[in-house]
Amino acid sequence: MTKRPLILVANDDGISAPGIRALIEVMNEFGEVVVVAPEGPQSGMGHAITLNSTLRCDQVHIDKGPQREYSCSGTPVDCVKLAVSKILDRKPDLCVSGINHGSNSSINVIYSGTMSVAVEGALEGIPSIGFSLLDFSHDADFSACKDIVRTLTEKVLQDGLPEGSCLNVNIPKLSKEEIKGIRVCRQANANWVEEFDERKDPMGRTYYWLTGTFKNYDNGEDTDEWALANGYVSVVPVQYDVTAHHVIPILNKWTL
Amino acid sequence: MTKRPLILVANDDGISAPGIRALIEVMNEFGEVVVVAPEGPQSGMGHAITLNSTLRCDQVHIDKGPQREYSCSGTPVDCVKLAVSKILDRKPDLCVSGINHGSNSSINVIYSGTMSVAVEGALEGIPSIGFSLLDFSHDADFSACKDIVRTLTEKVLQDGLPEGSCLNVNIPKLSKEEIKGIRVCRQANANWVEEFDERKDPMGRTYYWLTGTFKNYDNGEDTDEWALANGYVSVVPVQYDVTAHHVIPILNKWTL
Repeated sequence: MTKRPLILVANDDGISAPGIRALIEVMNEFGEVVVVAPEGPQSGMGHAITLNSTLRCDQVHIDKGPQREYSCSGTPVDCVKLAVSKILDRKPDLCVSGINHGSNSSINVIYSGTMSVAVEGALEGIPSIGFSLLDFSHDADFSACKDIVRTLTEKVLQDGLPEGSCLNVNIPKLSKEEIKGIRVCRQANANWVEEFDERKDPMGRTYYWLTGTFKNYDNGEDTDEWALANGYVSVVPVQYDVTAHHVIPILNKWTL
Repeated sequence: MTKRPLILVANDDGISAPGIRALIEVMNEFGEVVVVAPEGPQSGMGHAITLNSTLRCDQVHIDKGPQREYSCSGTPVDCVKLAVSKILDRKPDLCVSGINHGSNSSINVIYSGTMSVAVEGALEGIPSIGFSLLDFSHDADFSACKDIVRTLTEKVLQDGLPEGSCLNVNIPKLSKEEIKGIRVCRQANANWVEEFDERKDPMGRTYYWLTGTFKNYDNGEDTDEWALANGYVSVVPVQYDVTAHHVIPILNKWTL
């Protein structure tokens, strides 16, 4: 790459979240940075897009960094689509998302707005990475993440990624010294068991808050859950072809 | 199955959409039907869940059918989670979604609220099917769909589905006589090229409508796009493990 790479940055926690500010800081070391991110929190938005209402996207200035930034009224995927179609003059060399406040390991990948950015980037033919730190708090410490982000960004800018895939990177809540390394993994077989919190409003009507307990059914040592529980950063290659190819021969035996 | 099957019905077009009314009618032939569906349109919601606000879910009576029905303020995935966790006494024997007004073939699967219901059903261990008709109009004619829905429902109730997978069924906009049959397919490699419609509001501020053109890059005759273009119903088995397993050995060669 002779010219400075063009890097698109987005997230799902909103443009002013500490996680995206840390990510922008690192990206400014690598190239020309354009941020297009939701104006507020969009966690759990999965691969949602805005079909039934309009979108706003306005340039903003949040810190004194050299990046250009746009705040968007839509979902994380809307941000990528708007960036590629309306804001950027050329296809970016890299699309990064996060750093998410909280895990996007195993099944969380399908609910994750952070990872929807990376998947949408891959769909647009852009090498893409979603970064998440296993710490939900607003005051999460992203300092240990920065070296991980640097290492993977450098590698992906240099080598690219196989067509149709992007990376889901999760970082344990540990100090730089405690992190044992980076492991390539598969998505663990896990899910959430819902426990809706049922309440009454002042008018006596029932309403609910979605909560739940995470259940890992997977004992494999090649999973992201294993890596994270054992002090490693997990890197899972993710694809948007969701065909269960191994099921096709089974269905072909059906008489329909 | 000795007792009457328990069937959960949801969709993304909203509880009063003609597509779900047609689906409920067919499901009433097979078992005890419980409908938990969004109160209004939720198209393009992907696998979104409601994390930052509360949920409402109230029993409603829409027609004179024997089904029990609940209208939910949340996303299609919220509907499945609420049904399983709060409304149903036992795990349903089948979860069906749709009939969607419009295609969910190829890449549309990842943006689709209809398919998010089926994927969430699969995650809960319920044999699940999402049905879509290739007709966006509110007045779409679902009569040709009913036989297809019957055939697949009967088969899935009888044989179940392999763990971790569900079915994405798309039905071409053709008469019963014109439909050539049912084909098991893989998801075509296709995407949307965005064309945002840029407008000015009465205050002179810019806003956008998301539009786009569907591009199929796949010439395979084993894809859903091929089947639909050639007069067949497409059935794609879909999984929620999104690991790009074939990319793992490539990443393992990286020195990180």
